[in-house]
Amino acid sequence: MEQKSFHMTPDEFRRQGRAVVDWIADYYERVESFPVLSQVKPGEIRACLNPEPPMQGEAFEKILADVENLLPGVTHWQSPNFFAYFPANTSGPSILAELLSAGLGVQGMLWATSPACTELETHVLDWLVDALALPRKFKSDSAGGGTIQDSASSAALCALLAARERITQYQINARGVNERLVAYASTQTHSSVEKGVGIIGIGRENLRLIAVDENFAMRADELAKQIQTDRAAGLVPFFVCATIGTTSSNALDPLPEIGRICRDAGVWLHVDAAMSGTAAICPEYQTLNDGVEFADSYSFNPHKWMFTNFDCNCFYVADRAALINALSILPEYLRNQATESGAVFDYRDWQISLGRRFRSLKLWFVLRYYGIEGLRYHVRQHIALAQNFAAQIRASEKFELVAPSPLNLVCFRHVNGDAFNRQLLERLNASGRIYLTHTILNGQYTLRLCVGQTNTQARHVAEAWRLIQQVARELEGEK
Amino acid sequence: MEQKSFHMTPDEFRRQGRAVVDWIADYYERVESFPVLSQVKPGEIRACLNPEPPMQGEAFEKILADVENLLPGVTHWQSPNFFAYFPANTSGPSILAELLSAGLGVQGMLWATSPACTELETHVLDWLVDALALPRKFKSDSAGGGTIQDSASSAALCALLAARERITQYQINARGVNERLVAYASTQTHSSVEKGVGIIGIGRENLRLIAVDENFAMRADELAKQIQTDRAAGLVPFFVCATIGTTSSNALDPLPEIGRICRDAGVWLHVDAAMSGTAAICPEYQTLNDGVEFADSYSFNPHKWMFTNFDCNCFYVADRAALINALSILPEYLRNQATESGAVFDYRDWQISLGRRFRSLKLWFVLRYYGIEGLRYHVRQHIALAQNFAAQIRASEKFELVAPSPLNLVCFRHVNGDAFNRQLLERLNASGRIYLTHTILNGQYTLRLCVGQTNTQARHVAEAWRLIQQVARELEGEK
Repeated sequence: MEQKSFHMTPDEFRRQGRAVVDWIADYYERVESFPVLSQVKPGEIRACLNPEPPMQGEAFEKILADVENLLPGVTHWQSPNFFAYFPANTSGPSILAELLSAGLGVQGMLWATSPACTELETHVLDWLVDALALPRKFKSDSAGGGTIQDSASSAALCALLAARERITQYQINARGVNERLVAYASTQTHSSVEKGVGIIGIGRENLRLIAVDENFAMRADELAKQIQTDRAAGLVPFFVCATIGTTSSNALDPLPEIGRICRDAGVWLHVDAAMSGTAAICPEYQTLNDGVEFADSYSFNPHKWMFTNFDCNCFYVADRAALINALSILPEYLRNQATESGAVFDYRDWQISLGRRFRSLKLWFVLRYYGIEGLRYHVRQHIALAQNFAAQIRASEKFELVAPSPLNLVCFRHVNGDAFNRQLLERLNASGRIYLTHTILNGQYTLRLCVGQTNTQARHVAEAWRLIQQVARELEGEK
Repeated sequence: MEQKSFHMTPDEFRRQGRAVVDWIADYYERVESFPVLSQVKPGEIRACLNPEPPMQGEAFEKILADVENLLPGVTHWQSPNFFAYFPANTSGPSILAELLSAGLGVQGMLWATSPACTELETHVLDWLVDALALPRKFKSDSAGGGTIQDSASSAALCALLAARERITQYQINARGVNERLVAYASTQTHSSVEKGVGIIGIGRENLRLIAVDENFAMRADELAKQIQTDRAAGLVPFFVCATIGTTSSNALDPLPEIGRICRDAGVWLHVDAAMSGTAAICPEYQTLNDGVEFADSYSFNPHKWMFTNFDCNCFYVADRAALINALSILPEYLRNQATESGAVFDYRDWQISLGRRFRSLKLWFVLRYYGIEGLRYHVRQHIALAQNFAAQIRASEKFELVAPSPLNLVCFRHVNGDAFNRQLLERLNASGRIYLTHTILNGQYTLRLCVGQTNTQARHVAEAWRLIQQVARELEGEK
């Protein structure tokens, strides 16, 4: 019946696969030659693309060659001169494990649909509890456990759902009753919590943004007060998000105090350590986790700072039943013996989507290729480079620190005010030589420099500092 | 400062990359030698893994070699003998584009964070509107547009959110008001709609499951009646999900009738074509889309049947403002000129998560490598193979069809009743030679055979049919 085939043969796959592998190796060798922040204008990339999809297939070589035309539109997250946002770093073993995952092409929605996909995930998530000195209650042999989500946003959403259902005895999911629930975060908490509160139907107005102290950390006393006030008004406090390393300034919320408040109030505590959780791989930073023992859920992103390509968020819960009860569905066509035996995890009940990739492979590869010691070494290097940069800002007459720099993010500004700093940032990014982003702290326009890209070394940070000073001098000269 | 490095060098990446590429090519060459459905018991795979994460890094060769130990725990979705669920097929160009995406490691949350990531996505999604003869209103130069979601579950959730907000004038997101909303699907609609209704806080009880006709298609008259009843009771109908190719039996809901009802009632119509949407690449199946012109949103999965590895769901909306208004957030640290100009799409506002991979690369590679003609050829082959199998069931005295087979899914059973069919399925799957799953239709235990894996050819379906008959005969002999 099928004499014809348009599929790539295994032999062509070998040949083209090598070409793509080489393309990527070449890319990393020349990545510093591109502007870090893409300099194209809206529509410029689309203008290079065929307006219509091809009717006839094209040679793989031609398609791969055309990737070159996309490069001007790429912002190079894997450039060692990328200091913007938080990083989304990666590494050779992670990229190759992602390739393996795509090649195997399994879909791990249920244990039965690929037991190795589920069991390896459970296993490496347990490994990370040990490696990061997280509470034992997050391990799979307790009542809790961990799973891989695509992002910290999804983790926060799942935490919100589990909390919403627990407090209402699983009645919102079932009946949509409105219990006048209230959630809490700080003014510095990641926007995904506000987005999640909107999604689950609580109403963004019912998210209280608690004031922060001079270090941009949540004020535990204000949290306690607000919970009391809300309860007195007949509202139902149900969820607090505390952060280890906020997005704006890497602020560290006081977890032990917040944790005790949540415990006493019977409120779900979610800890968002998306960026900074990785630091706890080093014993000297494990104090970051003080207070996590109070958390009902916790998440951090190996896809930010643990050399594992996006997407890979690790999400832990202390009581997996609360999560599963909030998200479980079981249509007939998904029934199977393993599920009914209760002896396995079906991770589709731990997340929003049904389907899921074999993402634990890349974590497994990274943890084994680097070893805990290798990861520690590079995390320490990044922190040292950022601390060194902060010291230079501190010593400078023209620049000042705007927030503490506990780890690998430095928030700073030129003393010449907001307009000057905005111009400075624009000119730096337009140079293509480095990429920084900004935030506003204490009402002031602030530059952020985060050291976390895999290949960032001392010379890159030194050159960034040199360039920042030089462009600032140029701008001063123009005034 | 850093003399030491634990990173993989570009040279090692070239070498190990080749090894992984070869591993995958070898895997496809030997995939038929493995049991399709993994035969391991719970815990068996974990028992092979080191209880503790390694302190020191290991050689890449050793890690890759250990993947072999995972294989007994892999259910081989890419085996040509995989006929279970719906497929999650893939192809050489898709796997290599996924590799490229992992290598580039960009994070396309905003246009500015990699313009090519956003623009290529917009472009290929527009291509697919043309290729599938979908309504023009889903193109990006209209008021609508398309985006890639991880799964049809997420697409349904986003559609529910946009619909929820539109009907309440964006008040649930903001204030959490409870408007007594009601959603509609059929008894055959995918479980993700029920999950989504629970997530957004409407209450699963407020999802009406409309009865189906003898072909398992939603009864439009029953839908109209139910909407009227609910409205008379003071409830607010806001969302209908219609399906092109249900999961149980590939049933086709009557879109034109449902569409007119939704239009007249002012209700959001979401069309879930997760599996069968791909068939419309062939002109002779574009009638499947009759009535999609009434839809407010539409989604289908290239990661099921378009040779593009999971995850890749294409999600279209006719009014992108409704979606964006439901999901938008804009903290200071994400502000940028391009966003403020309004000239670009920031896809983080079209989805649940903030971060996103460069997933359009794999769709671009697949569409170009196969060309529309190549895709049509293989889709037609799969349908022909399934139709041929259905004809054999029809001609058989021992087996019967339980539902129409409009495309590539055949629902059938042995005449000997439920217990017999259950045993038959268990024995077939335990043989490891094919993998089928089941459903229940009209209260009867039913076997499903879906032809959609990339490399499934006539001989695989013929062998499946031979094996099914043989095992059935064995079982009959044992009675």
